[in-house]
Amino acid sequence: MKHNFGAGPCILPKEVFQEASQAVIDFNNTGLSILEISHRSKEFEAVLDEATKLVRELLNVPQGYSILFLQGGASLQFAMVALNLLPENGKAAYLDTGVWASKAIKEAKKIGNVEVVASSSDKNYTYIPKQYTVPADAAYFHYTSNNTIYGTEVFDVPASSAPIVVDMSSDILSREINVSDFDLIYAGAQKNMGPAGATLVIVKDEILGKTGRVIPSILDYTAHISADSMYNTPPVFSIFVSLLNLRWLKAKGGVAVIEQENIIKARTLYDEIDRNPFFKGTAAVEDRSRMNVTFVMDSAELEAEFLALAKERELIGIKGHRSVGGFRASIYNALSITSINAMVDAMKEFEELKK
Amino acid sequence: MKHNFGAGPCILPKEVFQEASQAVIDFNNTGLSILEISHRSKEFEAVLDEATKLVRELLNVPQGYSILFLQGGASLQFAMVALNLLPENGKAAYLDTGVWASKAIKEAKKIGNVEVVASSSDKNYTYIPKQYTVPADAAYFHYTSNNTIYGTEVFDVPASSAPIVVDMSSDILSREINVSDFDLIYAGAQKNMGPAGATLVIVKDEILGKTGRVIPSILDYTAHISADSMYNTPPVFSIFVSLLNLRWLKAKGGVAVIEQENIIKARTLYDEIDRNPFFKGTAAVEDRSRMNVTFVMDSAELEAEFLALAKERELIGIKGHRSVGGFRASIYNALSITSINAMVDAMKEFEELKK
Repeated sequence: MKHNFGAGPCILPKEVFQEASQAVIDFNNTGLSILEISHRSKEFEAVLDEATKLVRELLNVPQGYSILFLQGGASLQFAMVALNLLPENGKAAYLDTGVWASKAIKEAKKIGNVEVVASSSDKNYTYIPKQYTVPADAAYFHYTSNNTIYGTEVFDVPASSAPIVVDMSSDILSREINVSDFDLIYAGAQKNMGPAGATLVIVKDEILGKTGRVIPSILDYTAHISADSMYNTPPVFSIFVSLLNLRWLKAKGGVAVIEQENIIKARTLYDEIDRNPFFKGTAAVEDRSRMNVTFVMDSAELEAEFLALAKERELIGIKGHRSVGGFRASIYNALSITSINAMVDAMKEFEELKK
Repeated sequence: MKHNFGAGPCILPKEVFQEASQAVIDFNNTGLSILEISHRSKEFEAVLDEATKLVRELLNVPQGYSILFLQGGASLQFAMVALNLLPENGKAAYLDTGVWASKAIKEAKKIGNVEVVASSSDKNYTYIPKQYTVPADAAYFHYTSNNTIYGTEVFDVPASSAPIVVDMSSDILSREINVSDFDLIYAGAQKNMGPAGATLVIVKDEILGKTGRVIPSILDYTAHISADSMYNTPPVFSIFVSLLNLRWLKAKGGVAVIEQENIIKARTLYDEIDRNPFFKGTAAVEDRSRMNVTFVMDSAELEAEFLALAKERELIGIKGHRSVGGFRASIYNALSITSINAMVDAMKEFEELKK
């Protein structure tokens, strides 16, 4: 059995793969593939409707927020957020916690004025800055809730009098959130929601339409809201697989249940990292991500040896990002505790071998 | 056997569905689903590379043109084309041949100056305008090569001294084209190339980077070219299924072979429409599309009766767009002559019943 610790696109539940595979041959006993049905068919409308309702239910999304399934990933959101929320002479505040936050900043700067309120670039993004103030006149405040490369996560919603926009691409649906703390949440699907190719947006309707900008329709949240995510042909299969995954999550007991599992999974792995003299976590302890666990060893030789052992044990996708080095174990919702235990066993085995 | 005449997302070859279904369980004997592999894995890089090469080979794309797989469909291209090619004080020329052409015009107008050189809206877009001149000072000339709703198609490349941009969403890969006649070709995948969620762009490199505009990276063709379509996480599964479909097309003998099949398929159906007194084509004969065959009957009662018979014969997806009424049989690459014959048989049967 392969243990897929890949950073994303990543593991999804086996049941989801099986149902998705079946639907590619015969979707819902229609005699047609999910790949050949019209997005305007009542069958697909039911898929989109159920997926939207499940997001609303699982995240307890209040009235006054729209739920959209779009394309283009977080990278398209970097532009859409600024186009839709940043007035010509306004200013947006951004927190810089890594490569993805920096890209969001770079893209927003192409569209308007940006103030970076704090950055952890001084320590290679190994921590989450906490001492900063969001300017009261900011049109919005943007941050990235989980930083896959560095293994840091923002657990407490930052204080901000400005509307809060958050990139939750890599931790959405992994823990309970209070949606009303936020004004806009976006997430590429390809971690905890589904396969690559779909993007979830949850937006408070009342913050839209205030910038006076002329926005191309495809980049205008209001156009997608008016059309119930059918402004243009949606990514049918990616949304369908997301639905299967949302159903799986609901059947498990929902976000509160998966959060407990994720806490146990992360703790199990971090405990071993802290106990085992061969491994060392790279992120500040209080900011350690529950989704991406980053750790290093004392030398490149040791790391190569452990990587070889991990490969033998079918622990895959654990090589760290080049900017951090070492290892990154991504432990998203669908990764079971069995896989965590397999990793811990390999770490212990390595320690024994080296004694 | 269901005969899927849907307008898109549409029928793809059965073999493609089978291989795609298998890959959702186990991709290429990796022991992993195609849905859980990293887009940075060598396996997916091989998929993207082969898909790109097959497009180049099948369409005989010359050097100097880049081939991109993006997201967002034609609707995102409406904005990207204008952002990338229309200078602040420049002007773009557009041909108006239907709803999709009109949307492209509407979106370009948000970005710059647009001159509509001709329109067939006077006759509900049932023909392709031919008497017009593209202004020599236009930054580019845009048209839609196939109009799915009205069943018209542009077979001859219009005369233009300006660079030509064409939306080939619904006829790309259905007939031979001379890519060097064009400067930018775009196409949503979901007709002849693959499932919804991927967009093909073929662009002449030298036309880019000339507008002086600041463009968000995700909307900048040059960013995608520099990153070989990996600027952001690509729609992995949609590209993979497109690859399967491109392989299928190559194995069939390529675009020249499918074009001959498409000519025969279209002729067979149009011949019956012209012969059978119960049916009447809606598009100007010289502009009849080989992809979408639109026809009506003398009354709503007759149409309801024929629709019922068609349903019995498992001819599905044939209801015409509300703006044209009657019927639309979409007969894309993967629809076999068997399905065309089943449609013709039903039309003959209807005639017999009414005699």
